[in-house]
Amino acid sequence: MSLNLQTHTEHFTNPLYLESGRILEPYDITYETYGEMNDDKSNVIIVCHALTGSHHAAGIYEGETKAGWWDGFIGSGKAIDTDKYFVICSNVIGSCFGSTGPMSLQHPHHDYYRYKFPVVTIKDMVKAQRILFDRLDIHRVYAIIGGSMGGMQALQFAIHYPNFAQKIISLAATYATQPWAIAFNKVAQESILKDPDFKQGYYDPELIAENGLAGMAVGRMAGHISFLSHESMQSKFGREYKRTDGLYELFGKFQIESYLEYNGYNFTKWFDPLAYLYITKAINIFDLSRGFDSLSEAMKKIQSQLHLISFKNDILFKNKEMQKLHATLEEIGNTNYHYIDIDSMYGHDAFLVELDKFENYVKDVLDG
Amino acid sequence: MSLNLQTHTEHFTNPLYLESGRILEPYDITYETYGEMNDDKSNVIIVCHALTGSHHAAGIYEGETKAGWWDGFIGSGKAIDTDKYFVICSNVIGSCFGSTGPMSLQHPHHDYYRYKFPVVTIKDMVKAQRILFDRLDIHRVYAIIGGSMGGMQALQFAIHYPNFAQKIISLAATYATQPWAIAFNKVAQESILKDPDFKQGYYDPELIAENGLAGMAVGRMAGHISFLSHESMQSKFGREYKRTDGLYELFGKFQIESYLEYNGYNFTKWFDPLAYLYITKAINIFDLSRGFDSLSEAMKKIQSQLHLISFKNDILFKNKEMQKLHATLEEIGNTNYHYIDIDSMYGHDAFLVELDKFENYVKDVLDG
Repeated sequence: MSLNLQTHTEHFTNPLYLESGRILEPYDITYETYGEMNDDKSNVIIVCHALTGSHHAAGIYEGETKAGWWDGFIGSGKAIDTDKYFVICSNVIGSCFGSTGPMSLQHPHHDYYRYKFPVVTIKDMVKAQRILFDRLDIHRVYAIIGGSMGGMQALQFAIHYPNFAQKIISLAATYATQPWAIAFNKVAQESILKDPDFKQGYYDPELIAENGLAGMAVGRMAGHISFLSHESMQSKFGREYKRTDGLYELFGKFQIESYLEYNGYNFTKWFDPLAYLYITKAINIFDLSRGFDSLSEAMKKIQSQLHLISFKNDILFKNKEMQKLHATLEEIGNTNYHYIDIDSMYGHDAFLVELDKFENYVKDVLDG
Repeated sequence: MSLNLQTHTEHFTNPLYLESGRILEPYDITYETYGEMNDDKSNVIIVCHALTGSHHAAGIYEGETKAGWWDGFIGSGKAIDTDKYFVICSNVIGSCFGSTGPMSLQHPHHDYYRYKFPVVTIKDMVKAQRILFDRLDIHRVYAIIGGSMGGMQALQFAIHYPNFAQKIISLAATYATQPWAIAFNKVAQESILKDPDFKQGYYDPELIAENGLAGMAVGRMAGHISFLSHESMQSKFGREYKRTDGLYELFGKFQIESYLEYNGYNFTKWFDPLAYLYITKAINIFDLSRGFDSLSEAMKKIQSQLHLISFKNDILFKNKEMQKLHATLEEIGNTNYHYIDIDSMYGHDAFLVELDKFENYVKDVLDG
């Protein structure tokens, strides 16, 4: 069967009340769907994307060379089987792929928001999605799944909309962002802010898209370190040189250097620096216990069947952070959850690149 | 007894033949000594500094607020006891504290070298020190000790001057720099190179010293991540905010962010960006096996008693890198070495900050 990829944008005119006390009004949410919703709407799966992901999780657009970010995972016969399930993935607010973000036009001035855009949180992102699903007349879903910031959203759904999803699967996430991850984001933020071409947020978006922004490239390089692991770099790049044309090794460029350069500079062609600042801020201030007396109190709200998946070599959100959730669930006597810790040398990126390590598990959870 | 701190600079007019094939001529080496050399010169200990360290390892200059970088370790009654030993620490070539580096004046033009400065390697740094000691009429020493890049120098001394030191102690170092560490250096290098105030190396050193260089500050922040550990950040900063004046947490600055800012921007006031580029390059291309058929062949040259010290949470030079040296020594049947792996949550910085974890060990090695 076909993937039945559809892309839509919904426009909302009612105010979105944000955690900060500010409102976003009006706003758009862009989303994709795959597969077909059944008559009793019992086959809906929500996929949540990570920092630089988008609603484009699967399939390939005409003229595109690369498929959606979780294409190996979502499709006919795949772990999230679009022959059985109706899958929705929406671009989070604050991002730059169609949903309202800092480079959207502010009503009624028709100027870009830039720094006037309000701080958004993971909880706000989840709230906006919940409103989107209401609009689509979906008031309960079968499952929610996501990795990294997507895993944060999945957990936030579990706590704030306890009756919404039957099953929640959170990969490579945490209960609250730790200083280690905040530090990597700090390097990226500072690097963007100090780039003179960023012009304190008043850059020309077309010029940036064309020429890139060196500060964001450098920041993204730091990000890439945090997505990988000592082991995966050693295995993938070792101390190999990019050029092997006889130049003495003292003057060559290491493959790892070339990898970071390529990914850093390429990134600036497709991602917006203000969106990067706002979304890393949302990640930094992510804390499941906010608004509760403790993490335990927050976790007591959960009614969905919960699946936690961590990766042993993840240096960004360490497996012990997921283990704290596991321990908290034990402590409060929640018996409707399962935790697995996957051995992967790929580090944080494992949730995107080593699907074979968890696709059977996810398939079993969804199908069984 | 007093530390007997003395600072000197020696000038050399003979060419220094570098690994790259280029020469450095003339050149200076600045060094400090502590304690007093005994009559048979049997009490000399060489201390080697790390990336941004200097010859100023111990004691405090008039007007200084902070003592030398290993002051807790070197002094009367301390692990390296200046009542017993005559200690020498020299600034490496390529650095910016008196020894010849990229911002030294090039003879005979009396212009700064800048990019005309040759690539230097750890082996070159060690060779220059060996020539300094010859000048000081010291042809054999009791011990050589260093951490991080200082530990690399200690190992390089062991291989290239097998008869020079009786004992070698290398902390928090590696056999060859791995892509993980190169990646962190890449972020720093790229961040410096892309800063417009760096002016492709043609910056005004006085202006840089006064105003700092944001690109180097950002790069240094990435460095600081690699010096710490997830655990030490969690314990030291947690998710605490810098300001607690009632601002809602959504808008505050995390303590870890403030720590990185302070250390990043402060760094640019006392370190030279070109020196940072040259020394990180030297670290990246460090490989004990260069010039040999294999690491084993290189290690077979060692005649000194060798002490290897790694730290369990060091994410920059992982303990398994030191363990590779350990395994290689086993393999070649070297029985004159000892390896310890220290439990410290401080990560790479442990060799500077958690002296109590290894000072007794070092004292025993030196005294026994």
